[in-house]
Amino acid sequence: MSGTFVGIDVGGTNVKIGLFDAELKLLSKTSVTTDADMGPQVVIDKMARTVETLLTEAGLSLKDIVAVGIGTPGPAKYSEGIIIRSTNMPKFKNVPICRMLNEKLGAPIVFDNDANVACWGEYAVGAGKGVKDIVFFTLGTGIGGGIVSNGELVHGCDENGAELGHTIIYPDGRLCNCGQRGCAEAYASADSTARRATEALEAGAESSLSKVLDEKGRITSKDVYEHLASGDKLAKEITDGTAKALAITCINMLHATEPKRIVFAGGMIAAGEVLLDGIRRFFNEHVWTIKTESIEICFATLGEDAGIIGAAALAQYVKRRERGPR
Amino acid sequence: MSGTFVGIDVGGTNVKIGLFDAELKLLSKTSVTTDADMGPQVVIDKMARTVETLLTEAGLSLKDIVAVGIGTPGPAKYSEGIIIRSTNMPKFKNVPICRMLNEKLGAPIVFDNDANVACWGEYAVGAGKGVKDIVFFTLGTGIGGGIVSNGELVHGCDENGAELGHTIIYPDGRLCNCGQRGCAEAYASADSTARRATEALEAGAESSLSKVLDEKGRITSKDVYEHLASGDKLAKEITDGTAKALAITCINMLHATEPKRIVFAGGMIAAGEVLLDGIRRFFNEHVWTIKTESIEICFATLGEDAGIIGAAALAQYVKRRERGPR
Repeated sequence: MSGTFVGIDVGGTNVKIGLFDAELKLLSKTSVTTDADMGPQVVIDKMARTVETLLTEAGLSLKDIVAVGIGTPGPAKYSEGIIIRSTNMPKFKNVPICRMLNEKLGAPIVFDNDANVACWGEYAVGAGKGVKDIVFFTLGTGIGGGIVSNGELVHGCDENGAELGHTIIYPDGRLCNCGQRGCAEAYASADSTARRATEALEAGAESSLSKVLDEKGRITSKDVYEHLASGDKLAKEITDGTAKALAITCINMLHATEPKRIVFAGGMIAAGEVLLDGIRRFFNEHVWTIKTESIEICFATLGEDAGIIGAAALAQYVKRRERGPR
Repeated sequence: MSGTFVGIDVGGTNVKIGLFDAELKLLSKTSVTTDADMGPQVVIDKMARTVETLLTEAGLSLKDIVAVGIGTPGPAKYSEGIIIRSTNMPKFKNVPICRMLNEKLGAPIVFDNDANVACWGEYAVGAGKGVKDIVFFTLGTGIGGGIVSNGELVHGCDENGAELGHTIIYPDGRLCNCGQRGCAEAYASADSTARRATEALEAGAESSLSKVLDEKGRITSKDVYEHLASGDKLAKEITDGTAKALAITCINMLHATEPKRIVFAGGMIAAGEVLLDGIRRFFNEHVWTIKTESIEICFATLGEDAGIIGAAALAQYVKRRERGPR
């Protein structure tokens, strides 16, 4: 199968766009401001113009596009191609993004949420390559999730599945932004890791982090992992809490869709091997003893391009399966 | 598609066998003792003879069989047709049950674990009919699980997926038979429900159940639900614990594979609506508030025939998909 695939990663601030060849090799990419406050038509026109510019620069034209993949934050009716609403793009309400983009570009549009798209990218060409079952977590402000089971993304009955940050690990535990108590996200996202450290300091815990809080007025998860490296006891406690919460979530997914590989992405993986080591340690401590598991826990490899690569890869997959656009 | 399907449900004590027509209508069924201590060849010969007897009685012969479905407890390599070992059938070690049965019956054999088979039965013709995504729990000695996602059973990378009784709901909680702490099974199986009541009585709790313990020497989950009905306070506490553990597990599966319907089966569902009401109450109390969920929580409808119906239905499905035997 020859031809060009386009991957679009829509964020509240920037839209990233990449052109890929039939082997998913990146031909060129760019990033433009989203200008979400200008409303959907302006944003989508700009996306389409940017795609055309990239094509022209590459000596290609609209007719070379086989399919376009696009990822946005939810909630959306992905299979119907409609963004229901968006926290970061308040003017986007019930926007038929697939139809609008198709009118401009002509090619079929494949649409999914940003976490699923990044998950698919890792599955197709990144850290999940070579296996049929993966589970994917992004550790950022919240915790996003994705599941590939037997080579297919799990969407769920209303396309709200794989919200793995909202699986509960401590019933009646910390309040999560979603309204539940005890979600993994309430403990182990980058924001929750920083917040738990801040709360401990405010409650009087001794730590080298108090100087950071005093000077900067806030603490980030990056600060916590830096102070862990320099031997701070509170940082150890807090990051152990993060690792344990993620490990329990991994065990629960092992007993649900049984991934061969669990892939962590997102800003907090900058913490490095110490994060993975912690997750593996608590995983081994809490997982069942009746059989040895050969599950692999690792970092994503696609970095910041995961969104555009995943979108293009998903477009290619759906096209190959000849399902047509979702 | 015309022709006959056979469903076989292998338990440690009895083997149930059913003949079904192409619409999965039960033509006839029987139950024979497993005689597991006679070893695999004897057991499989007996299964085959029993199938032949049922066929003859129905005016049919081996050539009328389109496919045979069989469910056994794990662990097994289902896709390779091999029982690795069995707690209830100690002489069954690395038994190529599909090949051995195929040699006797000629027809293709479709093999899966007993919980997956029962789950598929409910999905195909029982409580899960009409939707594409279900989660299934059997509440017995342990808690078995099954997942149908987008119309397909979830097996996982090593065919050990959907062990939902071993998802952890209370990290560092009660010790489970599997070696983990805090599994759903350690709280909410029929056995664990009875055990928690017994432990409370032994610790001095006041309850009308103490008379049962004194007289019978043991308590069952049936006793606990009977005493709940007559207003016993301890029985309320214990059954609330069961319902809450199951509700948290349901919420976690909502955020994983997002079933439209969650189906409960197994001996403990004899407790009736009070069990479902409890699960729904804790589900609604603990589930997120950012959107309204339309998940249905209900009982299985196939009863004791779930194993043979599910096996026949799975055989039909696999045959229809022309994947050949698994």
